[in-house]
This record gives sequence, structure tokens and C-alpha cells, in this order.
Amino acid sequence: MQASPLKASIITIGDELLIGQTIDTNSAWMAQELNQIGLVVHRRVAVGDQWESIWKALDEESKEASVILLTGGLGPTADDITKPLLCSYFNGKLVLDPGALANVKQIFEQYLKRPLLDRNLRQAEVPDVCTVIPNTRGTAPGMWFEKNGVIYVSMPGVPHEMKGMMVQDVLPRLQERFHLRPVIHRTLITAGIGESFLAEKIKSFEEALPGCIKLAYLPNYGLVKLRLTLTDTRQEWAEKLDLLFLQLKQAVDEFLVAEEDITLQEVVGRLLSASGKTLGTAESCTGGYIAHLITSIPGSSTYYRGSVISYSNDLKQQLLKVPASTLQQEGAVSEDTVRAMCAGCLEQLQADYAIATSGIMGPDGGSREKPVGSVWIAAGTGNKIITRYEQFRFDRTRNIQLTANASLNLLRKLIVENG
Amino acid sequence: MQASPLKASIITIGDELLIGQTIDTNSAWMAQELNQIGLVVHRRVAVGDQWESIWKALDEESKEASVILLTGGLGPTADDITKPLLCSYFNGKLVLDPGALANVKQIFEQYLKRPLLDRNLRQAEVPDVCTVIPNTRGTAPGMWFEKNGVIYVSMPGVPHEMKGMMVQDVLPRLQERFHLRPVIHRTLITAGIGESFLAEKIKSFEEALPGCIKLAYLPNYGLVKLRLTLTDTRQEWAEKLDLLFLQLKQAVDEFLVAEEDITLQEVVGRLLSASGKTLGTAESCTGGYIAHLITSIPGSSTYYRGSVISYSNDLKQQLLKVPASTLQQEGAVSEDTVRAMCAGCLEQLQADYAIATSGIMGPDGGSREKPVGSVWIAAGTGNKIITRYEQFRFDRTRNIQLTANASLNLLRKLIVENG
Repeated sequence: MQASPLKASIITIGDELLIGQTIDTNSAWMAQELNQIGLVVHRRVAVGDQWESIWKALDEESKEASVILLTGGLGPTADDITKPLLCSYFNGKLVLDPGALANVKQIFEQYLKRPLLDRNLRQAEVPDVCTVIPNTRGTAPGMWFEKNGVIYVSMPGVPHEMKGMMVQDVLPRLQERFHLRPVIHRTLITAGIGESFLAEKIKSFEEALPGCIKLAYLPNYGLVKLRLTLTDTRQEWAEKLDLLFLQLKQAVDEFLVAEEDITLQEVVGRLLSASGKTLGTAESCTGGYIAHLITSIPGSSTYYRGSVISYSNDLKQQLLKVPASTLQQEGAVSEDTVRAMCAGCLEQLQADYAIATSGIMGPDGGSREKPVGSVWIAAGTGNKIITRYEQFRFDRTRNIQLTANASLNLLRKLIVENG
Repeated sequence: MQASPLKASIITIGDELLIGQTIDTNSAWMAQELNQIGLVVHRRVAVGDQWESIWKALDEESKEASVILLTGGLGPTADDITKPLLCSYFNGKLVLDPGALANVKQIFEQYLKRPLLDRNLRQAEVPDVCTVIPNTRGTAPGMWFEKNGVIYVSMPGVPHEMKGMMVQDVLPRLQERFHLRPVIHRTLITAGIGESFLAEKIKSFEEALPGCIKLAYLPNYGLVKLRLTLTDTRQEWAEKLDLLFLQLKQAVDEFLVAEEDITLQEVVGRLLSASGKTLGTAESCTGGYIAHLITSIPGSSTYYRGSVISYSNDLKQQLLKVPASTLQQEGAVSEDTVRAMCAGCLEQLQADYAIATSGIMGPDGGSREKPVGSVWIAAGTGNKIITRYEQFRFDRTRNIQLTANASLNLLRKLIVENG
């Protein structure tokens, strides 16, 4: 039989989510983790710090979900009402938890080095009807409730606190409680082909998919991720999924960047690590974003030399040895300049590989010949430098992100070609 | 009388949101914009690409909301079902829209330079019961429906496409339709004080607030934003809000960073622009993230010189002239090193101001003397360099963000002190 996966809901609480001052990154992370252990998130709801809204969301979600994860509204200030609400919702009363109290005291002594306030002490209070989930990264404890077979877990909205609780406590508890077997996802990444052309290319593959395997297209800054999801946990289907994934890889062949859900900076990092080569970057229009992506990866210091961000032209000359004549004759946004930046980066930063970017990201600075979105990128090694021109048509933030991905993909190709 | 603000709901559609492969940045932006025109977002719901889930969300949200904005599920591939669903929900039939068709053709000719596929042409089909919202940035048109006094607007999930439609069309239409007067928010930013200490400091202020003005605390990577929200649109209350905001500014005095909801890189950018001074950065542990923040601001090229990202020690010597002896005796993560990096940056990049960072961001690289989260930062101008040590206790991403904000705030103080 095909087991129907258990449903989960995520409720995020906080006025800041509804007036848009905070981008909710928690839900995506939580959804990923829940999927991994076989809990399907079927709805996410964001409500404000209002008693009725939270109460109603709890009532509604518990009609369909077996697990409800709540984040937010547990801070020490008066606008945070989640704890008293949960206490009331589950008919409990607040009591001081010794473990949570010891944790609050320890954090204040070790890190904050300030006297404890009464409101900080009250963070260690929990409803007597919950199981306390320890928070090793902050002062507000998590709370686990059960009612009519539904599990409710309340956690702080601070991402690293919530993540610590999930990994150390909540996920293992859920797995144990429901004897879960995971939903299986297989993801590959393509670059250099649009969503609709990709869809055309793999049309017959998609049409032949069995009902329990679903294909999704996820465009992401010049990349398109393709994800196969299997909801039937029987072994024969797992084998069938492997086979279909192999077919899918073959169908997209020359556009394939990675066979798993990783970023281009991870792909490039692995290639460099494997070959023992180093990388330097020379960024103009991307302004450090490529360097940031690369250095977001733990351990990148083993292959990343550094970057010269030459936002001004004279630094291109001084630090990257771009000839003044090139800048004068061709302009900063030109193939010759980006080629010279790349060569200068290889030389000055003593790197095995280099990336260089120069373009007009907008909203200002465009001209008739070089409109906003014009960008030259280069990737090089030794005496070989390859370049590429892109004409994006978006806003500043998106142009920077697209340029970064295009540059990392150009580098990836160069490394792969170079063997 | 106090007009009760109109309620809006946001429904985001897409399996990628529920399995966590996409972070929903749209909702926050939409919520901000809706708030500005006086529509209070009271719920946000994310559902998958499933017929029943979307249908149910439409039914539920229409019970309370006057405006329902939907994003996602309008792509050219088979997993996108929002358009046929809406067509059925509002009892329409699909017809080809000439304007949308001309737009699809134009985008393919001008940018994609590829032949149109049948599935691309079908993007120009819309239900005959909707008003078409033009999409100048992509191929999928938006759709505006009305039913029983509730307005439903469906837009693509691609952020820049949705934003274009909102600004050019949807927001003006909503304002006109509901004769809206905005909810008023006043936000200030503090740095260098935790949420609970801030709450203690302004306790009496908070307790004395009238019922129609609400105070919220929004911690954000070492900053805490304080936001006053007024929901009563009468003029006397607007004046009272100004007075209260002034009191709040005075109450937080030495921790005040900005009197509006802007980022530290914007604050620093304005200070530099106003004084006609330039900035350079020398980043080690932050790996380009500070440069990225600075260059995210349009027009930053007028005051930002560039950066040397010296991820490896020898580049600190070569490009920033940090003495080898300093690195050997004190180590890369030390006050002397960060001071030398800052001095080298001022000199080598010919900048009026400089920032330098060096630290251990984790998860590896820590030691007993210098654990993960140890970071030295410096800000300098002329012969004056100020430094600061921080001990963060978080993960790599968060440590980088906290270091960036701490560095920008140190620079801000230096610029302000320097007059």
C-alpha cells in the first residue's frame, strides 16, 4: 500500500512579517527539514501578534495537520503574546522551568555580561502542560504540546535559535514519534536554458512519468532546477526513481551543472578542492557579491585567494594592471577591460583561476550603446581567458545575482574543460 | 470615527515554497507596499500547486479579506495550474489577449532571440472574466478579478515581474478603488543595545502609549528597529504620533542610528555623499559581504572606491602592506592586523575612510584562545583608526552579517564624530 504522508503546517507569528519588515527565511528551512524526514508541509500561514489570529490559525491548521510548527512571538517584550496564548490554548499555567532558567543565567554571564532583568527571567517560564525544548543558542525555550493526536511545537523566530532546536531536538522527536520514512526528492541543476525550452526538451519524459513521481521546474537566477519527487515509499519505486533521474540527466545533458541541489559556488568549490587549484576574483559591477557567495561556503579559505573590487577605474589600473589605454579606448564595460582584469587578477593575486566582471547594473549609468543590464564577464587560467557578454533586463539586485551566477558558470565550464 | 482598515491576504502558490527550495521574499515586499497605501495584511498563506489547496485558500481568505493577492503558478510548464484554476473559480473561459500576445512576442524577439513555442503563446491566454494586468518584464500577464465585493489579483511569482505589476498597475488601482488613506509607521534604528535592555529603557514610554499606537521591536543582526504604528487616520493622531516619535528618539538617544527604516549601508552612504568623502574596505572574514552591502545601493560608485578581500595572509601583506611581523607575532585575527589592514586600505585605495575586518566565522578554524565568532574590526580616516573586538556565538552566515553591521556602525560613529 502507498502510505499517505503525514501533513505538517507552519505558522509564523509576528507583525513584522505582515508589514514586510522581515523576510521569512525560517519557513523555507523548516520545510526542507520536514520534507527530509517525510513530513509534507501542506500549508504555511503567517499571522500577526494578535490573540484571535493566532488562536484561529491553531484551530484551522489542526483540522488537517498532524504536526504544527510555530515560530515567533516569544521575545521578552510586551508585543510578544505567543506564550500566554499557548498557555491558555492548552489550559496550562506558567511555571518557572529550572533548566531554562539556568540557560538564561548562563547566557547572560558568558556572553552578554550584563545584569539579568526581570523580563529576562520570565523567559524561563513555560506552561506546565508542555515538554520544554532546550534553547542552547538563546534565552527563550521551545515548547512541545500534544492535543487530540496533533503535535504543536513553538519555537523562537530567531533563525539560528530555531535551527538549533529543530536539529537537536524537534526533528529527532518527530521521527521517533511517527516512525517516519522520508519522501524522496532528486534534484538536478541546469544553466544556460530557459524554463520553457527545457520543458519542450523533456516533454516526452515528463508525459511518461508515473502518478507518484512529480516533476517541478524551479528557475533561480539564470539556473533552472529540475526536481523529481517520489511520494510512494516502496522500494521498487525508489529504484524506478533512480532510473528516471538518470534519464532526466541524459535528456538535459549539455545544460547539466550539478546532480544535486547545491549552489554554483559549491560546485565550483568542489572542483577547485578536488584539483588543488586556487581562485581569485576581480569584481567591478558585482561589487563583492561573487566573493561573498564563494566565502559563504565553509572551508573556502583553502582554495579562495581573495578579490580586488575595483569599483573605481583607477583601482583597475593600480591593483589589476588594466592598461589606461584599454579603459580610455574601450571603456570600463568592454571585452578588453574584463579580459585585462582577469589577466591582472591571475597575476596579481597569484591564482590558478580567475573571474572578472564589469557591467552596468542600474538603475542609472546606462547609455544608448551600453544600456542598463549590459555586462562583460571573463574566466581565465594560465594564458587562456574566455569571455561572455550578457544583456540582462532587470533591476540592480537581480542583475548582480544573474551576473554572479553567469560568471560562476563560465568558470565552472573552464575548469571542466581544463580537466 | 476611526475607520477600520481594510484587510488584505496574500496567497503564495508553489510546491517550491512548501518543500523549502525557495525563500518567499515577495510577501514581505508586497506587505510593505500594501501597508503604505493603508491595506493591512492580516494573513499570509502559502500553498502548493494543488487544485484543492488553492481553491480552499481562496474560499477561506475571502471570508475576511477585501483584497487577495496571489503570486505564483503562472509559468509555462505543466506543474503550474493557477490560471486554469482561477478560470474555473470565477466561471470564465480562456481567451487569447492581444496585448499579452504582443508582449510575449516582443520579449522573445528583443531579448530571448529564440523561436516562440506553443506553450509560450498560451501564456497570453487569460480568463474572459478578468481585467488583464500588463507584465512589462515577463511573459505571464497578471489577472484582476472581482467577486462579491472582494478583489483578487493573480501575478507571477518572479519577484521583478510581480513588483513591476504592483507598482505600475495594482497599487494605483487599489488606491483608487478603495479611496485609501495610509496606515502610518514611524521607524527608528538602534545599534549596540539588546532588545530586552531597550525595552527596559523605554518601559514608561511604552506603557503610556494610547491604544491606537502600537510599538514593535524588530531585532535585526545587531540592530533593533523600533516601530510605532498608527491605525487611526485622523489628523490629531498624526500630530500626536510625531510627538511620540520625538520622545522615543530622545529616550534611545546614544543608541540611535537612523530615524527611518533604512539600512546601515544607506546611512553610511548618505553621510559619505553629504561630506563628499570616499570609502574603501579591506575584508578578510566578511569575504566581500560588506562590499556587497555597500554596492547594493544605487549610486554607491560616487563614494565607494573598492575593496581588497585578502582571504589569504600573503595578500594582506602584498595588497594592504600589513607587515609580515604583525601577522607572525599577533596572527591574522588581532587588533594590530586589523589596524594595519585599515591603514593599508586608506593608503593603497586612496580612500578618505576605510573599514577592515578579520575574524573566525566558523564552523572550523577556532582555537581555545580565538574561538569561532572572534572578530576584530577597524574603521579609520587620516591618522585616526578605531578598533573593536566582538565575540559572536552563532553560525557562519550570521557571524558574517553581524560583523558587517558592527563594522558599518563603527564607521558611522567615526564619520559622525569627525563632523
